[in-house]
Amino acid sequence: MIAYQNIIDKIAIDSKNTLNKGVVASYIPELATINLNKFGIHILDAKNNNYSSGDALEGFSIQSISKVLTLALSFGIIGDDLWKRVDVEPSGDPFNHLSLLELENGIPRNPFINAGAIVIADILASHLKNPKEDFLNFIRELTNDPSIRYNEKVALSEKRTGFKNYAAANLLKSYGNLHNDVEIVLDFYFHQCAIEMNCKQLVNAFYIFMNHGTCQRGKNYLNVNQVKRINALMLTCGFYDEAGEFAFEVGLPGKSGVGGGIVALLPNTYCVATWSPGLNKKGNSKLGMAALEELTTRTGHSIF
Amino acid sequence: MIAYQNIIDKIAIDSKNTLNKGVVASYIPELATINLNKFGIHILDAKNNNYSSGDALEGFSIQSISKVLTLALSFGIIGDDLWKRVDVEPSGDPFNHLSLLELENGIPRNPFINAGAIVIADILASHLKNPKEDFLNFIRELTNDPSIRYNEKVALSEKRTGFKNYAAANLLKSYGNLHNDVEIVLDFYFHQCAIEMNCKQLVNAFYIFMNHGTCQRGKNYLNVNQVKRINALMLTCGFYDEAGEFAFEVGLPGKSGVGGGIVALLPNTYCVATWSPGLNKKGNSKLGMAALEELTTRTGHSIF
Amino acid sequence: MIAYQNIIDKIAIDSKNTLNKGVVASYIPELATINLNKFGIHILDAKNNNYSSGDALEGFSIQSISKVLTLALSFGIIGDDLWKRVDVEPSGDPFNHLSLLELENGIPRNPFINAGAIVIADILASHLKNPKEDFLNFIRELTNDPSIRYNEKVALSEKRTGFKNYAAANLLKSYGNLHNDVEIVLDFYFHQCAIEMNCKQLVNAFYIFMNHGTCQRGKNYLNVNQVKRINALMLTCGFYDEAGEFAFEVGLPGKSGVGGGIVALLPNTYCVATWSPGLNKKGNSKLGMAALEELTTRTGHSIF
Amino acid sequence: MIAYQNIIDKIAIDSKNTLNKGVVASYIPELATINLNKFGIHILDAKNNNYSSGDALEGFSIQSISKVLTLALSFGIIGDDLWKRVDVEPSGDPFNHLSLLELENGIPRNPFINAGAIVIADILASHLKNPKEDFLNFIRELTNDPSIRYNEKVALSEKRTGFKNYAAANLLKSYGNLHNDVEIVLDFYFHQCAIEMNCKQLVNAFYIFMNHGTCQRGKNYLNVNQVKRINALMLTCGFYDEAGEFAFEVGLPGKSGVGGGIVALLPNTYCVATWSPGLNKKGNSKLGMAALEELTTRTGHSIF
Repeated sequence: MIAYQNIIDKIAIDSKNTLNKGVVASYIPELATINLNKFGIHILDAKNNNYSSGDALEGFSIQSISKVLTLALSFGIIGDDLWKRVDVEPSGDPFNHLSLLELENGIPRNPFINAGAIVIADILASHLKNPKEDFLNFIRELTNDPSIRYNEKVALSEKRTGFKNYAAANLLKSYGNLHNDVEIVLDFYFHQCAIEMNCKQLVNAFYIFMNHGTCQRGKNYLNVNQVKRINALMLTCGFYDEAGEFAFEVGLPGKSGVGGGIVALLPNTYCVATWSPGLNKKGNSKLGMAALEELTTRTGHSIF
Repeated sequence: MIAYQNIIDKIAIDSKNTLNKGVVASYIPELATINLNKFGIHILDAKNNNYSSGDALEGFSIQSISKVLTLALSFGIIGDDLWKRVDVEPSGDPFNHLSLLELENGIPRNPFINAGAIVIADILASHLKNPKEDFLNFIRELTNDPSIRYNEKVALSEKRTGFKNYAAANLLKSYGNLHNDVEIVLDFYFHQCAIEMNCKQLVNAFYIFMNHGTCQRGKNYLNVNQVKRINALMLTCGFYDEAGEFAFEVGLPGKSGVGGGIVALLPNTYCVATWSPGLNKKGNSKLGMAALEELTTRTGHSIF
Repeated sequence: MIAYQNIIDKIAIDSKNTLNKGVVASYIPELATINLNKFGIHILDAKNNNYSSGDALEGFSIQSISKVLTLALSFGIIGDDLWKRVDVEPSGDPFNHLSLLELENGIPRNPFINAGAIVIADILASHLKNPKEDFLNFIRELTNDPSIRYNEKVALSEKRTGFKNYAAANLLKSYGNLHNDVEIVLDFYFHQCAIEMNCKQLVNAFYIFMNHGTCQRGKNYLNVNQVKRINALMLTCGFYDEAGEFAFEVGLPGKSGVGGGIVALLPNTYCVATWSPGLNKKGNSKLGMAALEELTTRTGHSIF
Repeated sequence: MIAYQNIIDKIAIDSKNTLNKGVVASYIPELATINLNKFGIHILDAKNNNYSSGDALEGFSIQSISKVLTLALSFGIIGDDLWKRVDVEPSGDPFNHLSLLELENGIPRNPFINAGAIVIADILASHLKNPKEDFLNFIRELTNDPSIRYNEKVALSEKRTGFKNYAAANLLKSYGNLHNDVEIVLDFYFHQCAIEMNCKQLVNAFYIFMNHGTCQRGKNYLNVNQVKRINALMLTCGFYDEAGEFAFEVGLPGKSGVGGGIVALLPNTYCVATWSPGLNKKGNSKLGMAALEELTTRTGHSIF
């Protein structure tokens, strides 16, 4: 049996002692005020054991991690029709995300680049009665935790500075790949990014992806095939322009957010979340990436 | 002395008889209803002689031709500071206009691609008290014609379908190269494109570019150096992705619009406007391009 | 225990009966003559059981599949220094492979695009005494099969028509990322692509990637960490511009070649090779892709 | 009458006194040894008056200026068929010249980017008996000067370091837009760039472009229409990624080379050549650009 607690305690101490912790995201004023010294890590294994270290119970803005959850919800609702509106290939190009959208006639490369997640948000806006409420309830149900909520100040802050997302949504609209009003879709999108969760809540939510689509309480949300696909997308597209690097170094499906969170999982084995607000140049949590590499090296396990 | 009247009468007859007249722009419902058989041409020479043929006195939507006039007005107001916010190079790339904006950090390639014209509109929104009124007055003054007006239905139609322009404006905003609100700037921009003028009014307005910056009534708007620069921009960037072709075939500075209008000029000699609503694949008036090639071939004159 | 034999027999029959078998690669005359009706599949599991169906013992040109083997050999020789000269990110862009090379200063996106494989070939040309002989011996050793050989006619055919590879090699040279002469490197590269193997030989060679770097005879070639990295690269970059699709549909690390071969593996479990010469639009074997999707669906196993 | 001599003497003195003279091209060893303090300027007007200042009679490597002369010769030979193999649009994109070639299926953007000039060289290789000898004779005839010659050391230096040109030629070959062997075409191309001429010889050669295709001795090489087209190409594409800037600042058709030379012309009026080996960031002669801007400002004349 693997000594997860020893490993993550060691990782947490090393992380706290690391001098270069990266740079906190500054493009949203609300995110820029986070304490750079925070570090949390939490593991939930397939037998429902929990291992926690550092600031694992402190909430933070999950940002792009939410894209996996909106994908799961929409995939469950409309099934494979989803792939008519968004592709499943890595974006590859670190330079021109909107240009790819132009070249490919308004079909985003994958559901984890912003344009793709905005299409997913549009699908939910079409199929849910009260998108913001219903999506929050989905997460509360997955985690069995009704305390999870939107941070309205962060959502407002994103809306006020989200010009690139407005650009992407309007470009999608020009190609006919956004069915609802730009304002409605982006209001939902800015809210989904502004959800606050802690590391423990995140592993509870992502438990379904390591457990064939079934949550801890036994409710099934996705079939095995759908889970395979979402995990494949996390592996190939989950870390912006550093997805290859993460697959290469860590070897687990996962997703990062500019709030400093990362969730990753080893199918049938465990789900892990880290939080460290300092980002590297590619926009992923610097210490979180290092922690997960250390974890897979120390345990000797990856999907490969 | 050149028999302009004979030449343009011949051109007008040939144009009316041409079977393949191109395709009317359909992206704005208001433009799609234009009669494809319209053809007008009008020449104003340096001695104030007028030569007219076909539907030269019928108004149409000047669309992108307005970009030369907003450039002239803003250049006159802020001078060379303008070039800190927009470049003077051809866009070259027929594929990814927004991608170039991303690659070049929000500085549009030139003032005649949409993103560049939106920056110019932003400059006018900053420097004019009543941008729409003041710009219209500028044109009325240039042409000595108070009847010129905005077509509000076209402006509204552009606003409702102008998602790519919203995308460009928001992208500019994300780079800090749009100082006013997106809605304010685009309201002005959609109006400038929706001005209605006929061929005769257009040559009156563009007279300053063939006459060292001085209009027919003797008022000076731009210095010789500024006129040189605007003419150079028309030659290198005035015809979307077909600017090289136009310089190559016709050899005059000019500007086209998707309403089917083209204005061109031979410095110190004449200014010419054509109108034929059918466009070629690159978005320029098919018969207008042919007419101007014929004109320069028949007269034997170009800037080269 | 999984009934591999039943599954692959069913797949082989279905494949033979499929009407649309894709299109044989025609860019090399030598490849264009292959019989489109060939179909082979072979599985080698972790307990050294072999399962074979169809034309699994008939040799074909392995083409790009060789890139995994040159990567393994060079990675074993120079270790992580390799990653200074080639990146590990998916190429993403289906349009401009050379343009990415230009944008990224001569560092190929990953070792499986042609430019990347040419850099790997250059590394071997620098470190092996007799590159062609030594590489062939490496494969013979891995497979315990001295009959494997280069098809000189195919190698010559590639050389005569390989202008894009000459372009890539010269571009790499201009960036200082090719240390040997273009002719020497490409001679080796064209030969590595021209190796002939059958499905059974391929799974023998790829056994090390599902077995922690150790071959069937117990010799260790790569450490666990290196195997993880190569498998991650196969998953994210192994199928040209369709890598995301393969990860998504099949969920195994693998590599395809334009000769119609595919090799894939489930770590610790099995290694599988298919051969069907007809390609889909992205250049991957049409029936091979379908066979592997069927295999993972029928067995219910993937890395996710 | 314009006091050309006074103007160019003033320009030559100012240039010699300028401290920041740009940077000498270093990519070819043979070019890197040039004295940065050289400055020459020469004007030939339509009445065959010559005005000379500075080092106007000292020879230098004309490099890309040769592309106008190969274009003129090939255009004269095959006429408009030439435009089936090369386009007439500005390249626009400062980043990816080869990528445009890929996007546009092997048709170079214009005859003045390297790929385009290599296609022109290929045309001459197909139509001339002894391409190198015949092209040199063409220039000697244009200039009435049999002393003009290739610098074989420069040609060899280019060949040894010209990997990007080898990449371009091979890419053209892969698209079927290079009919002769890569080595044959590039041998000619490296020689054409290695021609040595002085400012006076250059204006003699370019006299045809300001004089309707007829040289000083009255022989006609191109018709009026062809001259118009070549001049238009010089204006829109003659200065690498700074063509717009040159049209904007100077307002004359012209062509620069990395040897530090520039030739420009005002149709029917004069032809001017400058030489100053220091280049700006875009690869054009820094003081040459400034000199021509000063010349057109002082004379008050441009094509606009």
